[in-house]
Amino acid sequence: MDTAMDAVVLDRDHAHEASGVVVVIDVLRAFTTGSLAVANGVPTIHLVADPADAFALRDAHPDVLLMGEEGGLPIDGFDLSNSPVELIASDVRGRELVHRTSSGTRAAVAAFAGADRLYCASLLSAVATAQAIGEDTPTYVVSGRSAERAAFDDGDDDLAVAEHIEALRLGRTPPADTSHRIITSPAAARLREIGVAEADIRCAATPVHGPTLMAARDDRGLRLTPVPPTWRPVADPR
Amino acid sequence: MDTAMDAVVLDRDHAHEASGVVVVIDVLRAFTTGSLAVANGVPTIHLVADPADAFALRDAHPDVLLMGEEGGLPIDGFDLSNSPVELIASDVRGRELVHRTSSGTRAAVAAFAGADRLYCASLLSAVATAQAIGEDTPTYVVSGRSAERAAFDDGDDDLAVAEHIEALRLGRTPPADTSHRIITSPAAARLREIGVAEADIRCAATPVHGPTLMAARDDRGLRLTPVPPTWRPVADPR
Repeated sequence: MDTAMDAVVLDRDHAHEASGVVVVIDVLRAFTTGSLAVANGVPTIHLVADPADAFALRDAHPDVLLMGEEGGLPIDGFDLSNSPVELIASDVRGRELVHRTSSGTRAAVAAFAGADRLYCASLLSAVATAQAIGEDTPTYVVSGRSAERAAFDDGDDDLAVAEHIEALRLGRTPPADTSHRIITSPAAARLREIGVAEADIRCAATPVHGPTLMAARDDRGLRLTPVPPTWRPVADPR
Repeated sequence: MDTAMDAVVLDRDHAHEASGVVVVIDVLRAFTTGSLAVANGVPTIHLVADPADAFALRDAHPDVLLMGEEGGLPIDGFDLSNSPVELIASDVRGRELVHRTSSGTRAAVAAFAGADRLYCASLLSAVATAQAIGEDTPTYVVSGRSAERAAFDDGDDDLAVAEHIEALRLGRTPPADTSHRIITSPAAARLREIGVAEADIRCAATPVHGPTLMAARDDRGLRLTPVPPTWRPVADPR
């Protein structure tokens, strides 16, 4: 896959080949929605690849909320679609989520097996992700790109975020056009075609800073928990 | 005014008495909208106290966009209301804004005369504001509170943000209930009554981090420019 970066970049068809520190990116919209969820008080997000897995989890744990999409559209029987603005407007505090999306959560489930550590990232979590990676060069999974459907899913929105995180990680000034690349990407155009609100696309492209999502395995499968960005205090209270 | 803080806290009726480093807070919704605007590529925001001043600025500079409200509602002839979600969904990149609101921008204009430095803040800009303040103890102007209309405008949403910034400034853990206080404040209830979308209230209460707004005077009046939050890089590229 062509990229301006030295780091390894995989599309979602090759997510299972990732190893070491892995960053799975889905900016439109899975991990934007996910980071906003944990910022707003969701204690954990269970990631699943298929809607059937989500319904099975709710059968076993009726308190969870199901969030996700199929082909970009809401799923019958789910509580929430995969929408950042809908998420913000919802009262999710203290509720565990089960999250299923066509690109991001499936790529994360595929990538987890070979990863030493795995983060699920968006522009919102670029700073926190760059900070969390540490000293190792990560592998980026650009979940919106599929080599089998390259004309349709070029993943430039996710690649822009990968380049943004990589610049931050290396202490360089991040590109100024990341938001613009997200807003003008083929993925954004496709969301507009199927009726997704412009506010969702713009929210994902808004350069504010929230937590990244770190994956672990528990008895229910893959689980994401927040890692907030850190900052340098200006005043020393001691 | 009662507060848990040592710092001076003024309501908007006394904004003109502020001195030193001054932080004017309007979380629902003026300076949430303002910080999102500059995060999304607005180079400067001109603050005005009255709609007439906004129209006069546009007469002189036809390229500006007018944004604001009167009593919480859109103003006829303005381009944008005072809505964070509407702002996110709009293409404002490279456009200068003129911003007028009933509490926040009026309090900022009143406070500027006596201030050595002035920041216009929300929860979104809490970290950046705490970092920007520096060593001096600031005066907080809780713009949502008016002693003359205390039953109506108690300003607890803004006071919660003042306490949040003050904790960050002193290197303490900020309160965990800041978002909840904003969502359940009398100001939020009043916005719901007049038909403001829940997403706007929740967006203002979402604990993500964006730029704070620093005021200066130019030939058009008061002007806000962004000061982004800083962070500690985890990897040293040298």
